[in-house]
Amino acid sequence: MKFKVFSELSYEVFSPTTFIFNIQAAKSACQTIISELLIVTPAIKFEEFTLKNSGTRFVKMEVGKGVFFTLIYEAEVEVSYTVYDEKVLLQSIPIINLDHEVLPYISPSRHCESDKLLEFATKEFGYLPNEYAKAKAIKESIFNTVEYKTSVTNSSTSACDTLLDRVGVCKDFAHLGIALCRALDIPARYFTGYAYNLNPPDFHACFEAYIGGRWLFFDPTKLAVANGLVKIANGKDASEVAVASYFGDVNCTFMKIECQPITADFTPFNSENDRIEAISYE
Amino acid sequence: MKFKVFSELSYEVFSPTTFIFNIQAAKSACQTIISELLIVTPAIKFEEFTLKNSGTRFVKMEVGKGVFFTLIYEAEVEVSYTVYDEKVLLQSIPIINLDHEVLPYISPSRHCESDKLLEFATKEFGYLPNEYAKAKAIKESIFNTVEYKTSVTNSSTSACDTLLDRVGVCKDFAHLGIALCRALDIPARYFTGYAYNLNPPDFHACFEAYIGGRWLFFDPTKLAVANGLVKIANGKDASEVAVASYFGDVNCTFMKIECQPITADFTPFNSENDRIEAISYE
Amino acid sequence: MKFKVFSELSYEVFSPTTFIFNIQAAKSACQTIISELLIVTPAIKFEEFTLKNSGTRFVKMEVGKGVFFTLIYEAEVEVSYTVYDEKVLLQSIPIINLDHEVLPYISPSRHCESDKLLEFATKEFGYLPNEYAKAKAIKESIFNTVEYKTSVTNSSTSACDTLLDRVGVCKDFAHLGIALCRALDIPARYFTGYAYNLNPPDFHACFEAYIGGRWLFFDPTKLAVANGLVKIANGKDASEVAVASYFGDVNCTFMKIECQPITADFTPFNSENDRIEAISYE
Amino acid sequence: MKFKVFSELSYEVFSPTTFIFNIQAAKSACQTIISELLIVTPAIKFEEFTLKNSGTRFVKMEVGKGVFFTLIYEAEVEVSYTVYDEKVLLQSIPIINLDHEVLPYISPSRHCESDKLLEFATKEFGYLPNEYAKAKAIKESIFNTVEYKTSVTNSSTSACDTLLDRVGVCKDFAHLGIALCRALDIPARYFTGYAYNLNPPDFHACFEAYIGGRWLFFDPTKLAVANGLVKIANGKDASEVAVASYFGDVNCTFMKIECQPITADFTPFNSENDRIEAISYE
Repeated sequence: MKFKVFSELSYEVFSPTTFIFNIQAAKSACQTIISELLIVTPAIKFEEFTLKNSGTRFVKMEVGKGVFFTLIYEAEVEVSYTVYDEKVLLQSIPIINLDHEVLPYISPSRHCESDKLLEFATKEFGYLPNEYAKAKAIKESIFNTVEYKTSVTNSSTSACDTLLDRVGVCKDFAHLGIALCRALDIPARYFTGYAYNLNPPDFHACFEAYIGGRWLFFDPTKLAVANGLVKIANGKDASEVAVASYFGDVNCTFMKIECQPITADFTPFNSENDRIEAISYE
Repeated sequence: MKFKVFSELSYEVFSPTTFIFNIQAAKSACQTIISELLIVTPAIKFEEFTLKNSGTRFVKMEVGKGVFFTLIYEAEVEVSYTVYDEKVLLQSIPIINLDHEVLPYISPSRHCESDKLLEFATKEFGYLPNEYAKAKAIKESIFNTVEYKTSVTNSSTSACDTLLDRVGVCKDFAHLGIALCRALDIPARYFTGYAYNLNPPDFHACFEAYIGGRWLFFDPTKLAVANGLVKIANGKDASEVAVASYFGDVNCTFMKIECQPITADFTPFNSENDRIEAISYE
Repeated sequence: MKFKVFSELSYEVFSPTTFIFNIQAAKSACQTIISELLIVTPAIKFEEFTLKNSGTRFVKMEVGKGVFFTLIYEAEVEVSYTVYDEKVLLQSIPIINLDHEVLPYISPSRHCESDKLLEFATKEFGYLPNEYAKAKAIKESIFNTVEYKTSVTNSSTSACDTLLDRVGVCKDFAHLGIALCRALDIPARYFTGYAYNLNPPDFHACFEAYIGGRWLFFDPTKLAVANGLVKIANGKDASEVAVASYFGDVNCTFMKIECQPITADFTPFNSENDRIEAISYE
Repeated sequence: MKFKVFSELSYEVFSPTTFIFNIQAAKSACQTIISELLIVTPAIKFEEFTLKNSGTRFVKMEVGKGVFFTLIYEAEVEVSYTVYDEKVLLQSIPIINLDHEVLPYISPSRHCESDKLLEFATKEFGYLPNEYAKAKAIKESIFNTVEYKTSVTNSSTSACDTLLDRVGVCKDFAHLGIALCRALDIPARYFTGYAYNLNPPDFHACFEAYIGGRWLFFDPTKLAVANGLVKIANGKDASEVAVASYFGDVNCTFMKIECQPITADFTPFNSENDRIEAISYE
C-alpha cells in the first residue's frame, strides 16, 4: 500500500528557540520511504538525527528571535501490515517468556500512570478471558466513555486525568489505553502517525499492545481506518515522541496535515465487526 | 426505636495536645437522647460545645505531654425514621425551588471534588430517569467496584483518589457517593453515626442525598442495616465532622464501638429488594 | 468611609439555567448599606436569600433558553475598619481557647487542602515567632513567588496546584494563603469584595487570618489598598461564595466592576511599611 | 578504587510470580567487574539479560507458589571516577549542541513530572548564573527542606508529591532533583547503586545532571560519600531501573546490603566544601 503524506507547520518565534520535530515517516521492515522532502522557509539550517535505541527520526534547528518560518514535509511511503486472527490473538505469552526489549513497555511512564490504575483495570477488565479480549474491551470502553474534544487538555494531561475528566484528544485516548493495558501486565506503547481521512485533519495518536508476540494496533478514537496509517514513531508515551518540542517562546500559527493512498485499490479494513482480527504494523 | 450506643477511645499523648471529639449522638426532631454519659479517665477538664449552624456536638479538651487517657461515651437514644416510597422518591425538585439551606450541599468540598467529576458522573449515571435512580445506581456502583479495606487510605484521601484506587473504608465510600451525586446536581451530605451490627465494629460513615425534598439515606458499603443507625452528625464531608481531631503528637491505642437496639422487636429494614423505598433520618 | 460599588454582568443563555449570584455588599456591624439597587434587563423574576449560618446574601433566578440578559448592582456602602497594632497582633490564642465558631476555619476545604501542606508550611514558615509573623510571611512569599496571570487557572484549581504552578489570579493567591495558614493551625477564611482602584477591574478575593482574636485582612496579590474594600462575603473558600454559579449552558459576555470612595478625604492605608499593623473588617 | 559489594534478598511467594531484579553492578568504561557471584537458594533457574539501549543488567526468574527463596549477589568491582572543576562545571552547552542521546533526559518521566514544575523551578532557581549553580542549589534545597523518612512514600510517589509532602527516601530525593533540573532544561537521570557507609544500609539512589558535556553526580540526601558508589544502573527514573519488580503476590522478608572499599587508602571525597568540584562516574 502506497501513501502520500504531507505536513506543513508555521511558527512565530518570540525568543531564540531550539526546535525538535518528530514528523518524518518511520523507516522499518514494513515501511519504506520511496521519496521524501523537508523544506524550511525561509532557509534555516536543520539537522536530522535518529536515536540509537528507538530509531525515532528527529529534526532539530535553532531559530532566532522574530523569525516566522514554515516547515513542510512530504513523502511517498510504502506500508505493509499484517492481519492476525485468533491463532495469534488468543495466545498468551507469560511475562517470563516476553522478549526483553518489550519489558520496558509494562512499566508506567509520564502520561500513563499504570501503577495507579491496578485496581481500576483489574475490576473493570480483569475478568476477561485473554489479553486480546482485555485490550479490545479497553479500546471500546474508552471510545464509549471519553468525549473527543480539542483545546480542553494540554501537554501535562495524563491517563488518570482522562479517566476522571472523560474528555480529550487522540493522545489522551491513547495514553489511557496504554495505562490500562500496562496495569493488566500487557505491554503497550504509543504510536504516532499520519492517518488517512482523519477528521479533523491532524497528526494521529493510537496505541499498540503486545499480544501473542506481536504489536497489535488499537485506535480508541475510532477516527482512523486501521490500515490507513503511516507510522512516525513509537514510544512509551507522548513525552518520548512529541511531534514538536521547543525550548523558547513561540506560537504555532498554522498546521496542515494530509495522508492519501496513492494506490487506486485501497480497501479500508473494518475492525468493528465481530471477527477476531487485528492489524500489526510490523 | 431505642438504641444503646457505646464508644471507648484511648490515647497516648506525646506533646501538649488539643483534642476535639465528635462522638456524641445528635439531638434532632427524630433523635432524642434518653440518657448519656461522658467519662474521661484520668479526670481531665473537658468542654462541650455546639456549632450554631449545624448543631453538631463537639467535646474539646487540652491534654498534657505524657498523659495516657481514655474517653468513654454511653447513651440511650430514641431514633425515629421515615420510609418513603415512590410518591416522594420519584419527585424531582428543580434547583431554583430547593430550600436555600440545601444549596451548599451541591458545591464541592475537600474530600468530594464533584467539580472534577462532572463528565464522569454524567457519562456513567446521567442517562438514568430520575434523581433517586441516579443516587441508587451510584450506591450500587460504589459497592460493586470499590473494595472495603482498612489501612490503605488516610485522612487526605478524597473521592477522585477512591475512584481510581477502588479501595477504602466507609468514609471513602461515602465521599465518592457524595461527589458523584453533587456532580449530577443532587445535593448530598456526609453522615456519621453508630451502626448496629457493623463488622468490623467502628464508627460508620454513609451519605444522604436530597431527593423529593427529603434527605434520604444511602450506605454504599452495605455494611449497616439502613434502620440501625444512630446519627452523630451531618456535614459536607469528613473534614467537618471528624470523630476525633487533635493538634499535637498522639497515638490512638484502643477503640471500641458498640450499637445495640434495646427494643426487643427490632426488624432490620431490607433496602436491597426491588421496591422503591428509602429511609430518611429526619 | 463611604464607597460606591457597581457591577454589571451580561450572559447569553443556551439552555434553561438556574443562576445564583453573590455580588451584593455584605451587611455587618461595620458595613452598612446606605442604598442599593439590583436590576435585571430584560425583567426576569429573581429572589434574594440569605444563608442562616453565614449571612451571605444570594440572588437566584431561572432563565430560559435563548435569553440574553444583564444584571446590574449598584450600592452606596458605609464601611468601617479597625487598625490593630502589636498589642493585638503579637498575641497568640491557644486552639483550646478559640471561639468555637472559628474552629471550622482550621479544617481543609475544597480549594485549600491544608492537610496536604503540613510539612511544607512547617518547613517554610514554622520557625517564625508568632502567628502574625507567619501569616505576613505567607502573604509576602505568595506575592514574591506566584505570578498574577488570567486565563491560566480555572474553577477547579486549588492551593496545591498553585503552589506548584506558581501562577493564577486573586482567588488562587487567596486559596494558597488560606491553606498555608490552616496548615500552621491558624484559622483562615476567604474574603470576596469590591476593591478600590483594582487593576484589572474585577471582583477581588483576599484572605483573613484569625490572630489575637480578630480576623485580620491580607491581600497576597498586593493589588488592592487594604482599607479600600467593600466586603461581599466570607467563606471557607471560593466554593462557598462564588460570585456567580449557574446550572446550565451559558456564556458570560460582559463584565464591569467599579468601586470608588465617595468621601473626598480617602487616605489609602499603607500596609507595606515595617510597622506592625493590620486591618480588620469587623 | 576497588569495592566489594554484597546484597541478600529473601522473598516469600504467595502466588506464581515473575521476578525481575536489577542489582548487579553495571559494566562500563569506568567500572569493571573483577569477579561476581549470583546465588539463588533453593536453586531456581534464572536468566540474565541486558537491554540493548541502556546496557542495564537484569536477572529474571519464575517462582512457584509457596516458595521461600533467597538471592545473594556478591562482586568485586573496580571503579574509576573523574573530578571536574570549574573548567568543565561552568560551561554551558546550548540544547541544539547536546549529544542526541542526552535529549531524552530533558523530557518528563513517570516520577519526574518536570513539565508541571517549570514555573516553580524558574522562580526558585532560574536566577542562578549557570547550570552547575542551579543543580547544586537544587541539591542543597532538597537536602534542607525534605525530611528523610522511611515507610511514608511508596512506588507511586513522584516529584510533585515530594515537593509538597517534603518527606521521603533516597529515590524520592533523586526524583525531585531530576524533575527540577529538567524543568530548567538541564538533562538529568536517575542513578542507583551500592554506597559505602550508607546508614541505614540499603540500595542507594541519586541523580546525575548533564553539565558541560559530563554526567555529574549529585546526592541530595548527603547520606553517601560522593566517591564511594558502585553504579548499578542509570535510567529516566525508578520506573526504568527498579531494584526488584515482581508480577505476583510476594513479601520481602529480609534485605542486607553492603559496600566496602577493598583498597586500604580510600579517601572520602568531600563535596561539601566551597570549591567548585564535582564527580562524574563516566
